[in-house]
Amino acid sequence: MRKIEHIGIAVNNIEEATKTYELLFNKKAYKEEEVASEGVKTVFFETGESKIELLGATSSSSPIAKYLEKKGEGIHHIAFAVDNINKEIKRLETEGFQLINKEAKPGADQKIIAFLHPKSNHGVLIELCQDA
Amino acid sequence: MRKIEHIGIAVNNIEEATKTYELLFNKKAYKEEEVASEGVKTVFFETGESKIELLGATSSSSPIAKYLEKKGEGIHHIAFAVDNINKEIKRLETEGFQLINKEAKPGADQKIIAFLHPKSNHGVLIELCQDA
Repeated sequence: MRKIEHIGIAVNNIEEATKTYELLFNKKAYKEEEVASEGVKTVFFETGESKIELLGATSSSSPIAKYLEKKGEGIHHIAFAVDNINKEIKRLETEGFQLINKEAKPGADQKIIAFLHPKSNHGVLIELCQDA
Repeated sequence: MRKIEHIGIAVNNIEEATKTYELLFNKKAYKEEEVASEGVKTVFFETGESKIELLGATSSSSPIAKYLEKKGEGIHHIAFAVDNINKEIKRLETEGFQLINKEAKPGADQKIIAFLHPKSNHGVLIELCQDA
């Protein structure tokens, strides 16, 4: 875990949330990206070496739509940058962590990613990510 | 907002959670600190320029105990480092953000801190913090 790569925040209305976080950070978002496979639109802000990623659902079947329905708006996950995601997946599996993705898959922002189940991490959904 | 200073994670059993996060990060926590005024015990891990702060309740009346009872374990807040907390509090109030603390107060880890209400930030409890 080299650093916090980003924190993902699930929001109901991504345009409104973008305005709020522009005021909060006192600067503009630097990127928007739609990840069709996940049914999600993302908006990114930079803060130090990390990013804040706003996550809005683009379809009612997306994982973010289901999360919002169940838990409401708020912090959805923390992503940590790793140098070798496959090695880290194996190490964490051996240590007894429950992986949602046992193989890395493509994510937003030109990364390959894998999620650890919140049950393993005291309620925190953790993403590992490596530059693609 | 200069960087993510830390992410606070509320946990039921801080000793167990410390073991989990030691395995996750593959290194030891670098500090433990009790903040009696908040009824909380904190354990810190470094990751890049940021920290992960585990938060356990030390009394049933502490804000963390109430949070755990209502929401269960998980990410409690994001803290951003700021250079001038009083200036930032004023700027955000003027922009319409709801401040929980209109004046900075002492926090863990030799910081002065103030919280923004989650209602202003799409469900995210945000802490501003400045070196004391």
